[in-house]
Amino acid sequence: MASCRFAVAVHTLAVLACRKEKAVSSDTLARSINTNPVVVRRLLCDLREAGLVQTQKGVSGGTLLTRPPESISLREVYEAVECSSGLVLPQQAPNPECPIGRRMELLLPEIFAQAQEAMAQSLAQRTLADLMEPAETAAR
Amino acid sequence: MASCRFAVAVHTLAVLACRKEKAVSSDTLARSINTNPVVVRRLLCDLREAGLVQTQKGVSGGTLLTRPPESISLREVYEAVECSSGLVLPQQAPNPECPIGRRMELLLPEIFAQAQEAMAQSLAQRTLADLMEPAETAAR
Repeated sequence: MASCRFAVAVHTLAVLACRKEKAVSSDTLARSINTNPVVVRRLLCDLREAGLVQTQKGVSGGTLLTRPPESISLREVYEAVECSSGLVLPQQAPNPECPIGRRMELLLPEIFAQAQEAMAQSLAQRTLADLMEPAETAAR
Repeated sequence: MASCRFAVAVHTLAVLACRKEKAVSSDTLARSINTNPVVVRRLLCDLREAGLVQTQKGVSGGTLLTRPPESISLREVYEAVECSSGLVLPQQAPNPECPIGRRMELLLPEIFAQAQEAMAQSLAQRTLADLMEPAETAAR
């Protein structure tokens, strides 16, 4: 199971980065992403809570970035919109009578955390600005 | 959204590793994991397809590892049971009229692949045997 929230959030922020200081409506964002405005509004809520975007009310209202795209890493975006990591323990604890189950509970969280950190560090090397460059020069 | 299939698969294989050459039934595995035997049987099917376990029929039938635990990396287990990576593009393609959407389609797959590879490399550093050691010495 995997979620596309991160991909949609990056796309959303990339549109905002291109529009610079001009506020963008969730309808316009949804048209670019080809999704429902409700999906965009939910994501914007998470991005606002993480301090990555701000919303302006009024006739020319909409959403804009709070910081330059060079300073927003993809790690920050990932952590803003993905509520749980890709690696999780079962909700049901293992049988407490089983020594292997007890060992799994002890060891797996650390192994999962290291793997997630490796992924996050990879995402931390990219910023929104990398997505603004022409595709040819952004490819690394 | 996240799946606990990987955690349950690691637990399953750890039990098989402890039992060495003795075949283990899916009921016994399910008791240790504290889950439904159906969940275990589905996972065993994926692990069998990946060549990590084999099943013996008959009275003392059950499942056992095909290789020593030292030679089974957690990356192999992850790749055997997780059908998609944690980072995915939306099923719906972005608006083809929007240049930002086209750039996302071009750049995100590579960024996602690099992040996934970083996670997989972290998991590749551990084998099932690491989970067999006493908790005190296995912590790194």
